[in-house]
Amino acid sequence: MTETIGVIGLGCMGYGMACSVLKAGHITHGFDVNEAQVSKFIAEGGATGALNDVVPKLDAAMIVVLNAAQTETVLFGPSGIVSNMRKGSVVIACATVAPDFAREMVAKAAEYGVHYLDAPISGGSIKAAAGALSIMASGTADAFKAATTALDSTAEKVFELGEVGAGSAMKAVNQLLAGVHIATMAEAMTFGMTQGVTPEQFMEVIPNCAGSLWMLENRGPHIVNGDYTPHSSVNIWPKDLGIVLDIAKSAGFGAPVTAAALQQFLAAAGSGLGHEDDAAVAKVYARNAGLTLPTKDT
Amino acid sequence: MTETIGVIGLGCMGYGMACSVLKAGHITHGFDVNEAQVSKFIAEGGATGALNDVVPKLDAAMIVVLNAAQTETVLFGPSGIVSNMRKGSVVIACATVAPDFAREMVAKAAEYGVHYLDAPISGGSIKAAAGALSIMASGTADAFKAATTALDSTAEKVFELGEVGAGSAMKAVNQLLAGVHIATMAEAMTFGMTQGVTPEQFMEVIPNCAGSLWMLENRGPHIVNGDYTPHSSVNIWPKDLGIVLDIAKSAGFGAPVTAAALQQFLAAAGSGLGHEDDAAVAKVYARNAGLTLPTKDT
Repeated sequence: MTETIGVIGLGCMGYGMACSVLKAGHITHGFDVNEAQVSKFIAEGGATGALNDVVPKLDAAMIVVLNAAQTETVLFGPSGIVSNMRKGSVVIACATVAPDFAREMVAKAAEYGVHYLDAPISGGSIKAAAGALSIMASGTADAFKAATTALDSTAEKVFELGEVGAGSAMKAVNQLLAGVHIATMAEAMTFGMTQGVTPEQFMEVIPNCAGSLWMLENRGPHIVNGDYTPHSSVNIWPKDLGIVLDIAKSAGFGAPVTAAALQQFLAAAGSGLGHEDDAAVAKVYARNAGLTLPTKDT
Repeated sequence: MTETIGVIGLGCMGYGMACSVLKAGHITHGFDVNEAQVSKFIAEGGATGALNDVVPKLDAAMIVVLNAAQTETVLFGPSGIVSNMRKGSVVIACATVAPDFAREMVAKAAEYGVHYLDAPISGGSIKAAAGALSIMASGTADAFKAATTALDSTAEKVFELGEVGAGSAMKAVNQLLAGVHIATMAEAMTFGMTQGVTPEQFMEVIPNCAGSLWMLENRGPHIVNGDYTPHSSVNIWPKDLGIVLDIAKSAGFGAPVTAAALQQFLAAAGSGLGHEDDAAVAKVYARNAGLTLPTKDT
């Protein structure tokens, strides 16, 4: 059945998700503060219309913004959409946030009769564009029912994890791993260079060994090719590992490996690499050890 | 063609490798300080004979001991085998050692006309028993030629990485990753428990997400099942991450994530978990955060 679905936030992830919803045959509206992204999406077949006119028609609003603050502004700020959504429709909140924030949001949305699905995403921009994300979702049975079409259009795997907050908790666990892995892969690849192991040999051998990991096959080629076009930027990690360490601290949980990885991303962001691809954390290691990483030209 | 091959060191890895050589149809001698392991291997079809009588007949000697010191003792100690090996035979050295140590050994073996292959292994005890290891090998073309039968019997992938020392360098890179990954997986799984994510949910969801890694599927079940029977013990990691940090220091390379992971293994070993499976590093996290890990009985 054709639904009317809005995707708010047309960045690396949101744009791909909006395209996936469109390809699945739904009336799809894309919104972003960057008007160029909106025009580009309309040119691909996205529906037109002003936000205020469109919102009451939406069956589902997927919020694919950077963080909790942006999510709250979109939902409940001066131009917040929730008060304008029809009863029984659903907000699908995809940003990485603390579980407590998700629990606040579900309560506020309920005041307007709007369902709220705590639905962080994983898989990167290529899987987003292919409709093949993993979604770590939590919420009421009614929220899942209202979100079915939107989830099916964008995800290969939807995990139903329980009450609101459980999705964000699992996402925090995933981000702990993913962030540490990027830093560790960069550490291992540059360490190898000091021992005569070339990045190419690294990429050939390690996937066959116990040190193999998803991030190696996904981010490793960025370093080998010297291409730091941001698919996921360095700036994501001080934010996401910061969320992990904040909620870990609240729980009395020490996370020393995560803390060490965060320092490397802070060094990357602090030295001007924040908007590069997160694989650019390798540049911190290379700089500190006097190594020369591969460049696009070589 | 049938060869006569010796495997010295019948621990988790060496025993499986010896069985793989045997299955491939070669005359296989197994030696270990633990006589029970030797008897067990002979019962499976291993060849008999005293070390001094057997060594001159060997085409290849695979040394699968714990570290550099044991390797050196086996090769050049008071009962060292190299002086007793026939010219043109080959030592295949599988322990994780520093690249410089491998370079020392090849020179000493050459004095006796014996080839030396720097050939660290990866894959764990199950792959060892299946003849499906990855071997990160380096040495001369003649050493590779002499080692072909032994390598083919034990490995699914043999990487020819260049001059002696290159194999050990790649192994150090792999161990950096593998060690950090075990600690990170334990950190993520126990962190998740503080947020209501069960170990079972963790194992269900994360393999589909960007945080996925080989170690999760290999070591994760040990924690979920509360089974710390050592496949690879905690004590491996202070040693192997120690080697990594030693050679990193010599190269002027800072490895903060590795250093943080090492501290967790030191805490595990220091608190009496050294002989448990390395997944027992999770117990350090659980103890520090007041969490109860799954046990075999639950």
